[in-house]
Amino acid sequence: VETTLRSTGEAVAIAPDLPTVLIGERINPTGRRRLAAALAEGNLDLVRTEAEAQVAAGADVLDVNVGAAGIDEMSLLPQAVRTVMDTVGVPVCIDTANPQALRAALRTHAELAPEGTPLVNSVTGEEPRLNAVLPLVAEFGAAVVGLTMDDGGIPSTAEERLAVACRIVERAEGFGIPRHRVIIDCLALAVGADSAAASVCLQAVRLVREELGLNLTLGASNASFGLPDRDAVSCAFLAMSIQSGVNCPIVDAAKVRPTILATDLLLGRDPFARRYIRAYRERQKSRQ
Amino acid sequence: VETTLRSTGEAVAIAPDLPTVLIGERINPTGRRRLAAALAEGNLDLVRTEAEAQVAAGADVLDVNVGAAGIDEMSLLPQAVRTVMDTVGVPVCIDTANPQALRAALRTHAELAPEGTPLVNSVTGEEPRLNAVLPLVAEFGAAVVGLTMDDGGIPSTAEERLAVACRIVERAEGFGIPRHRVIIDCLALAVGADSAAASVCLQAVRLVREELGLNLTLGASNASFGLPDRDAVSCAFLAMSIQSGVNCPIVDAAKVRPTILATDLLLGRDPFARRYIRAYRERQKSRQ
Repeated sequence: VETTLRSTGEAVAIAPDLPTVLIGERINPTGRRRLAAALAEGNLDLVRTEAEAQVAAGADVLDVNVGAAGIDEMSLLPQAVRTVMDTVGVPVCIDTANPQALRAALRTHAELAPEGTPLVNSVTGEEPRLNAVLPLVAEFGAAVVGLTMDDGGIPSTAEERLAVACRIVERAEGFGIPRHRVIIDCLALAVGADSAAASVCLQAVRLVREELGLNLTLGASNASFGLPDRDAVSCAFLAMSIQSGVNCPIVDAAKVRPTILATDLLLGRDPFARRYIRAYRERQKSRQ
Repeated sequence: VETTLRSTGEAVAIAPDLPTVLIGERINPTGRRRLAAALAEGNLDLVRTEAEAQVAAGADVLDVNVGAAGIDEMSLLPQAVRTVMDTVGVPVCIDTANPQALRAALRTHAELAPEGTPLVNSVTGEEPRLNAVLPLVAEFGAAVVGLTMDDGGIPSTAEERLAVACRIVERAEGFGIPRHRVIIDCLALAVGADSAAASVCLQAVRLVREELGLNLTLGASNASFGLPDRDAVSCAFLAMSIQSGVNCPIVDAAKVRPTILATDLLLGRDPFARRYIRAYRERQKSRQ
């Protein structure tokens, strides 16, 4: 199964045997006070800076989220998408819980990249979300992230998360969205709060890959929430989740790209270590 | 399957659902010029220092290898084992390719710890090695590392490595060594030289764990040989190999313990993150 995303620049292909695709997570005001304040004033300079910095650090796709208290997403999300698309050519992942803001942002995307395929982040297995988001994904020819949670919340077993993933795919197909345009997120929760959180997630990832064959994303840094030395946890979790089937994680590229390149190398997806060594040299050069 | 090792101090248990056991690799002259020079002069001060430092860094077992050009292992290996056992109480992994030196070191170990169980590193599936090493392991009630290689060299497929592991276990049982005292090493080779090296090893680890249920060690740092930023590769490989079934890797504890603790935490082997947080606090304290 191959998912192809495209903005104004080159298309990015996501598939199990290709190198891991990095979705940059930093255009998101949650936990970033300076960005939140700028966005609240309608100032998109930091969005531009973060877009450039993340692509330079190796992000292949950029998540764009402007949701925070005091922000009118309906107006700001399309502007932020436009700013990103004006700044860099990589595909965009439109991240919002607001269907009207999503529609407006998808329209902006379609204007700037009529042949493009953005990624919509996200739909869940909840009925109202399925019915609000999937028609927009279908109308604009987008791809969509499906979170494995439904009206009952986040299932505590891997099998139940697989069942939610199955239902999202079925419902997407019912709206005319082919399954290769659905990317599943098995939901990384804080392992400090629940010691089974990561292992259930990894098991769900393996099940979705084996049973559905779909591409998988994950917000891997959530696992380390509340713990000291979060990077050690994030890097170990990324390596294990990529081994289990995650192939387009949402990450801070500057922090975790070496680990992801090392993981791809170890899984045999980087013949002669070409990508690994090239990225190492570029990091060395940029430090000089 | 549980393997219990013991020297003069507390026993160390190795089993699939217990926290990962770290075998400290640093008492080994290969690639360590200063240690090699000291050993060639019969000076064991550095062996003592390395023993203390590795235990302080979280090593649970210490590998002892004094093999290098110009060193009489027959005389020095028992001395080094004695030095380690006089310095720290953790179990010892006696690492030599010389059966006579192995016998002498096992005798020293038995004198100092009559109730002890050392680990012998290693036997292979090669007939002469099996016949030279296994009788000593049986005589001294030791445990043994079995490398998945035989007279034909290192097999290129995971299935063939499993077959070698099976044969080592059978031969060990033939000598009266119970299978729980055999630990398998699926052989990490340099991924820079062969892009399938790590994935074949990880697959072999999964097969040995699933088919034989045995405990598994691995010299994980070999995978990154010849590459820049080796620690990124080692850490990713350790996380993946522990997820696959390795539970007593041979490592530089000071470098990789945070990754191993994070991996155990993520795999649900560290309720309430107690070990992870305690180790973090100890590292912070030792830096002050």
